[in-house]
Amino acid sequence: MLSTGASSRCDAMRRVAIVGVGMSKFGEEWTRGFRDMIIEAGVRAVEDANLHGEEIDAMYIGTMAPGSLVGQEHVGALVADFLGLTPIPSIRVEAACASGGVALRTGYLAVASGMHDCVVVGGVEKMTDTPGNEVASALGGAGDQEWELFFGATFPAIYALMARRHMHQYGTTEEQMAAVAVKNHANAAKNKYAHFQNEITIETVMKSKYIASPLKLFDCSPITDGAAAVILMPLEKAKHYCEQPIEIVASAQASDMLALHSRESMVELKATKIAAKKAYEQAKLQPKDIDVVEVHDCFTIAEIMAIEDLGFFPKGQGGKASEEGRTALNAEISVNSSGGLKGCGHPVGATGVKQAVEIVWQLRGKAEGRQVKDCEIGMTHNVGGSGATAVVHIMKKV
Amino acid sequence: MLSTGASSRCDAMRRVAIVGVGMSKFGEEWTRGFRDMIIEAGVRAVEDANLHGEEIDAMYIGTMAPGSLVGQEHVGALVADFLGLTPIPSIRVEAACASGGVALRTGYLAVASGMHDCVVVGGVEKMTDTPGNEVASALGGAGDQEWELFFGATFPAIYALMARRHMHQYGTTEEQMAAVAVKNHANAAKNKYAHFQNEITIETVMKSKYIASPLKLFDCSPITDGAAAVILMPLEKAKHYCEQPIEIVASAQASDMLALHSRESMVELKATKIAAKKAYEQAKLQPKDIDVVEVHDCFTIAEIMAIEDLGFFPKGQGGKASEEGRTALNAEISVNSSGGLKGCGHPVGATGVKQAVEIVWQLRGKAEGRQVKDCEIGMTHNVGGSGATAVVHIMKKV
Repeated sequence: MLSTGASSRCDAMRRVAIVGVGMSKFGEEWTRGFRDMIIEAGVRAVEDANLHGEEIDAMYIGTMAPGSLVGQEHVGALVADFLGLTPIPSIRVEAACASGGVALRTGYLAVASGMHDCVVVGGVEKMTDTPGNEVASALGGAGDQEWELFFGATFPAIYALMARRHMHQYGTTEEQMAAVAVKNHANAAKNKYAHFQNEITIETVMKSKYIASPLKLFDCSPITDGAAAVILMPLEKAKHYCEQPIEIVASAQASDMLALHSRESMVELKATKIAAKKAYEQAKLQPKDIDVVEVHDCFTIAEIMAIEDLGFFPKGQGGKASEEGRTALNAEISVNSSGGLKGCGHPVGATGVKQAVEIVWQLRGKAEGRQVKDCEIGMTHNVGGSGATAVVHIMKKV
Repeated sequence: MLSTGASSRCDAMRRVAIVGVGMSKFGEEWTRGFRDMIIEAGVRAVEDANLHGEEIDAMYIGTMAPGSLVGQEHVGALVADFLGLTPIPSIRVEAACASGGVALRTGYLAVASGMHDCVVVGGVEKMTDTPGNEVASALGGAGDQEWELFFGATFPAIYALMARRHMHQYGTTEEQMAAVAVKNHANAAKNKYAHFQNEITIETVMKSKYIASPLKLFDCSPITDGAAAVILMPLEKAKHYCEQPIEIVASAQASDMLALHSRESMVELKATKIAAKKAYEQAKLQPKDIDVVEVHDCFTIAEIMAIEDLGFFPKGQGGKASEEGRTALNAEISVNSSGGLKGCGHPVGATGVKQAVEIVWQLRGKAEGRQVKDCEIGMTHNVGGSGATAVVHIMKKV
């Protein structure tokens, strides 16, 4: 047997590296459409990799809800067409807000297995052309439509339930959650691609209006337009294209019950824990080895749970650790140097790929004003819905 | 290099077999929802394979527009949850009406590459819970939203343009197109899973009203609910589970321009021709070796173009061949023994997987009243949109 359950890597597989990255400016991009953004990100990644288009074998595009948001499905073919890459096989993959991470893993496996030698992985979402209530409905499709959304449980409400339980069980406070938003805005202010480039204070968060108590406006990631892309190759080949290939040393994905009420716990994401365990095993690494991590902070409470579930802090201590600054840039572990979903923005299908772009920039030492010092190993953590899909990647300087 | 362009198979890859198949009754299934149908198909496939759920490593679900049609995205996790298969990685793939075929190819590659040893591939669409105009909009997302659908070019209109050009260039007639519908209804009448189980005459088609001239109501496949599933394993392992494993001897996919007006020709699908060429090369077979084929007859003209593009008849002769009965059950080549999209129905994401189910039944000799005699080799052909994605599989008795 070469594989079991959520793990898929075997010794027979090839080592895989990222040789090119690119992204569009995240934000409310009124002048650019869905296809403009993914083409921009794709072209930047291809240029960054010093590639010619004809060297590309296949493409995987992560996007969550383009049908509902911009009336466009069949996005794999669309991107192949507009990037001039036909007739390569091009596939859209979807796992709600984890679509980008799942696309990355699908592309990784395509190269690791020997199927393809040069793969583009893209992620994209165009969200601001759609009225707010329709965006909320589209995003609600990431949870259980029949048992959650139909009864009014939008995503802020679902994460608010988790936050309440975390507060009850571990004494986590609203100020601790606010500290996550303050830190992520501080990082985003140093990232020219970020949606928000302004710092905020604890008071900004605490005085903002409740969206779903205890979550306030500044506890929530924004509605964002954006795209990101990476190019993957076997490591051996990568060295001929790129001065600083970044190796993907682990790629793991797990699923969990779709609806929050079906889960064993409301204060942890089991899929994150399983995917992280597999990833650490694949990479033969431990949480203490990770220098920089992009976690899925769709809400501030999500970052607090993530840094616990990924093993950086004991369960229940994530809020306190955030408040004490232990997750700030160049502190104990640098969490969401890009600004995260909160500060950099959250074009849902793009997020998982953008996380990889940020980690590559960090490991190359090219993260400008937000560079993490002596950065050797990075991680990305991308979540679908309220946790029914989680994808974890670990990346390393070669 | 292990791969180039649209081809992906290499000698180092493992041989892959289908060990279990299942589908739900296709039709206007008012009493069953999206999740009911895919669970029914999945359970039937698992039972058919004599498997236990815990032996399954991963899942790939093809579905086109569940966000627009039933408000549900994140379908990979949904199906893993409701089939009791968490925490396995479960991924939705989408390529419009080729979503099922692309899911099959993604699952095939996952097993062939050694990543996974037991994979479920499902396809599903629930279409009748949605008003007709919204279904037409959702399906329009398979083409170019900005350059086709926005200006009113729905799919019947796009295929009508191809039909007009085919008539102009090759003398194809409306009666020849009608013959495709008559043959597919005759086959569907022998299939208990089919949407339509009634025979029709040339007169039925010719007297039906125009949808987009020259295409009439009976030239168009219907709006259908349904799901299908297959279980894949390495061939060596398959022999222990299954008396009659069916080997997938070729799997190829190609992309083309999304919009019809961007293409070189309006009377052929280039993506079909490229995917078919790759598939024949992989399998070391020729068109004359194929005994039974399920082609993508979303409109009657599509079947006529498909049997030409797949190499069964010279370009321009598909209409005449259909009229002469050369594609009927047990004629020169048995085309769409299931009834095809026209007769069996077209739940878009399910279609590509249903085609594989039908071919497996034929190769096992279990196709009941519609059995093709001395059936050794079968093919499936699944198209996305108006041809921007095409997927071709060839299957063989072991």
